Amino acid sequence: MPADIALAQGDFLVGDIDGNVRQVLDIAAKARDELGAAAVIFPELCICGYPPEDLLLRPEFLADVEAGLAHICKQTEGIDLVIGYPRRKKGQLYNAAGVIRSGAVIAEYFKAELPNYSVFDEKRYFMRGEAPCVVTIAGVPMGITICEDIWKARPAAQAAAAGARMILNLNASPYQAGKGKEREQVVSQRARENGLPVVYVNLVGGQDELVFDGASFVVDAGGKTLLRSAFFGPSLEVLSLEDGQPQPGVVTPCPDEEEMIYRALVLGVRDYVGKTGFKGVVLGLSGGIDSALTLAVAVDALGPEQVEVVLMPSRYTADMSNEDALEQARRMGVKHSIIPIEPAFKAFLGMLEEEFAGQPMDVTEENIQARCRGIILMAISNKSGRMLLTTGNKSEMSVGYATLYGDMAGGFAPLKDVFKTMVYRLSRWRNRDGEVIPERVIVRPPSAELRPDQQDTDSLPPYDVLDEILSRYVEQDQGVAEIVAAGFDQALVRRITRMVDVNEYKRRQAPPGVKVTRRAYGRDRRYPIVNGY
Amino acid sequence: MPADIALAQGDFLVGDIDGNVRQVLDIAAKARDELGAAAVIFPELCICGYPPEDLLLRPEFLADVEAGLAHICKQTEGIDLVIGYPRRKKGQLYNAAGVIRSGAVIAEYFKAELPNYSVFDEKRYFMRGEAPCVVTIAGVPMGITICEDIWKARPAAQAAAAGARMILNLNASPYQAGKGKEREQVVSQRARENGLPVVYVNLVGGQDELVFDGASFVVDAGGKTLLRSAFFGPSLEVLSLEDGQPQPGVVTPCPDEEEMIYRALVLGVRDYVGKTGFKGVVLGLSGGIDSALTLAVAVDALGPEQVEVVLMPSRYTADMSNEDALEQARRMGVKHSIIPIEPAFKAFLGMLEEEFAGQPMDVTEENIQARCRGIILMAISNKSGRMLLTTGNKSEMSVGYATLYGDMAGGFAPLKDVFKTMVYRLSRWRNRDGEVIPERVIVRPPSAELRPDQQDTDSLPPYDVLDEILSRYVEQDQGVAEIVAAGFDQALVRRITRMVDVNEYKRRQAPPGVKVTRRAYGRDRRYPIVNGY
Repeated sequence: MPADIALAQGDFLVGDIDGNVRQVLDIAAKARDELGAAAVIFPELCICGYPPEDLLLRPEFLADVEAGLAHICKQTEGIDLVIGYPRRKKGQLYNAAGVIRSGAVIAEYFKAELPNYSVFDEKRYFMRGEAPCVVTIAGVPMGITICEDIWKARPAAQAAAAGARMILNLNASPYQAGKGKEREQVVSQRARENGLPVVYVNLVGGQDELVFDGASFVVDAGGKTLLRSAFFGPSLEVLSLEDGQPQPGVVTPCPDEEEMIYRALVLGVRDYVGKTGFKGVVLGLSGGIDSALTLAVAVDALGPEQVEVVLMPSRYTADMSNEDALEQARRMGVKHSIIPIEPAFKAFLGMLEEEFAGQPMDVTEENIQARCRGIILMAISNKSGRMLLTTGNKSEMSVGYATLYGDMAGGFAPLKDVFKTMVYRLSRWRNRDGEVIPERVIVRPPSAELRPDQQDTDSLPPYDVLDEILSRYVEQDQGVAEIVAAGFDQALVRRITRMVDVNEYKRRQAPPGVKVTRRAYGRDRRYPIVNGY
Repeated sequence: MPADIALAQGDFLVGDIDGNVRQVLDIAAKARDELGAAAVIFPELCICGYPPEDLLLRPEFLADVEAGLAHICKQTEGIDLVIGYPRRKKGQLYNAAGVIRSGAVIAEYFKAELPNYSVFDEKRYFMRGEAPCVVTIAGVPMGITICEDIWKARPAAQAAAAGARMILNLNASPYQAGKGKEREQVVSQRARENGLPVVYVNLVGGQDELVFDGASFVVDAGGKTLLRSAFFGPSLEVLSLEDGQPQPGVVTPCPDEEEMIYRALVLGVRDYVGKTGFKGVVLGLSGGIDSALTLAVAVDALGPEQVEVVLMPSRYTADMSNEDALEQARRMGVKHSIIPIEPAFKAFLGMLEEEFAGQPMDVTEENIQARCRGIILMAISNKSGRMLLTTGNKSEMSVGYATLYGDMAGGFAPLKDVFKTMVYRLSRWRNRDGEVIPERVIVRPPSAELRPDQQDTDSLPPYDVLDEILSRYVEQDQGVAEIVAAGFDQALVRRITRMVDVNEYKRRQAPPGVKVTRRAYGRDRRYPIVNGY
């Protein structure tokens, strides 16, 4: 007997229970009426969005989720829903998936494997479940699992032992480079271990520092990918079952690494700005590559009408920088203003003359320039209702090569988790079909232009060396000895790792940005500021 | 047979393994040679400090802890040590306490109850232990437990069942108002349940947002407090045992609430500034009560020579504000400068004239003033190497009544977790033996002085009402309906709770401050910024 199930790869907003309930009902109606599906599978914690964080500690919030679930039950018929939500039971909270049929929750599964590493804090909120849950849906006994469950062997094996002929896996799995491939490998292995097909449904959309990339998929009992949904966008795919066997569908090809990261940044910016209700963005365009790439991402995320740039030259700004910035603003079709910072910079130097009498110029005066720009940009942000985007990259954020309240000011930092070497790769990639970032911006030696003839390499090694050391130290937890053994200069490694450590205080005050690597700054990396190591 | 054990209430710096090892050896030698103790009990994770956070994910760090432990073993004899450290075993990490005797670890206990709520993330790092550990020390079979273990019934009961005649409890328990009393009640109950005395040894010192208050204590088998160490300072108390029974010692009286909070703030500031290596602090003194109290705390923490204040009047600053600020600077004996912000404010208005043409003045211009002050203060901080202290309180931080990169700028925010009503109480308390904060600063209606005749109550309810709503919402997780039911206006409660929610983005970029309530902003409260609830 043929039967179809639908994979509801949706964007469910954290906390917006009413909106999520409406979306669930709309999707369920569409899956039933337009697609003829017998069941529709939603992502993990879809009624409240993921991750709800400490909203889960509010009894009022949990009661509202329960009311939302009851409303869904009452409003759906003619189709089965498998859907995720937080569930209170006997004084404990569980990360649950319920099967809704004919107006009632007919079965419930509680997530067994609770991730409590990286960005995840699930043991802060949830008790682990113990029992498998197998329910016949669309004529097939299906074992329900949630996200992390499929990364361990036990939950799927328990479901198989309990009679499952197919595994459903509800996810809220955030993007990071290479994760898509890893997911399919793990799920494929799980399928082969149990000789069962697996249906993997993921969330999509940006939430604070996370981007959920969608890319839901189905593997057959042999672990072969039969179907793959869109990346970085909502979709409602149908999986056909014939005699209980999933049939091949559309397999969306995997984009290459640059495209994946770039699209993650675009979605992250679009959703952070849109979901916080801002009317577009403003950013400082310096003529350097970081702000150039940030502008391209912003325009691709929001459209040129929603993006405004400000050129803020100082006495140290090269003409070339202004020319390149103007040229890019023109190419991207965005509004621009030019506001030289000299009057404010001069005013501050005058106001501080007595206080600083007899002391030489140092980084203080460089920071004042960066902070004058921060004030101008924040003023435009405040007046226009546009969010300020910060343009710094992960290499800078790592070593503290950025000014707090200056170029670090802003609501969102798109490149926060993108190393400088990747900034170059993404810029080249964005120029593939036409040069939107002027070539000269890409090939010029990078400079902060805060004093005469300054270049980044005055105080930092070349970025390919720096980024390799940083990646080993920050993302791979390697120690100094290990990095030196890989062929780097010991004094350099000591200096760089020390810079990372002592700049923790700056990162603590940095705006959020999109996680794209295996370890981003933010919830993902929890370091002490006071640190004697 | 008489025997003594020593309670080593020390300040062990996170990450400073070498320094902590030296301190352990010094304390052990002193306990043995000067105090004649048979054993000395150290706090939880004392070799690496608490909380080490993601340093625990570095294999190099764990190896260095192991080397430190081996060094301690080699260097001590003639006294038993009970000491906490992270311990790798069969690919897992445990929060361990070892008994060191005659050069070797003769027994090890692994913490069973791992806190993963509030500021704690122990399940991120550690596996739970299962077995009790009873070792005869100073002639008495002692059951070892670690911190959270004593808050649950099982670990002490397991130790008792395994033959313990006394319970040792190694802690790193951070201060919050009322916690000292709660600890002694819980430990007293545990003593009575098992009919065993309990020795509770706590860490002392500030670490990022936490202050460990010390106040180690001993209760007898009936739950009565026999001994209590100093609050907010290191100590090495000796507990006498006669025929295995603990004898009464000095019981330090518990200070009242204002004194406890004030001393927590002082220690928090002293340690944050000292442990990060700054040469004192600078802060903006406005003539308002928040900066007045912050100044008093800073001077009590660091001494007047290490503190510098800056008065930064604007066109909207009342003469009274300058007079009161000057008077307080004089009374506290700190260096002061006066830098009016008008030149920079004017420069920015001029630079933005074209951009803002035809648009009315609004909060933008208020923020520019606050940010001009931020630039001045950060410039002085950069030039002098003094850390900028932020003066905002918890009420402001809750509702966003503060300017990002303006008055929120700074390395540390002493009053971040202190509600405005408590700011008044602490100011009165600090004036108890002589008026250091001018009376007029306390009695004047509070104002941000960012526009003519502005008062806080223009846009906020009276602080006693505001703080009660905030405490219920933020600290007690009450919902709107519940707060309204307690007698507050519904529209007001909705407006205030909404302000708390939408200002999460500001708090995410705020500097750290000392946790003194049951829920502080920071690691203690993890909320989404994008939040549709």
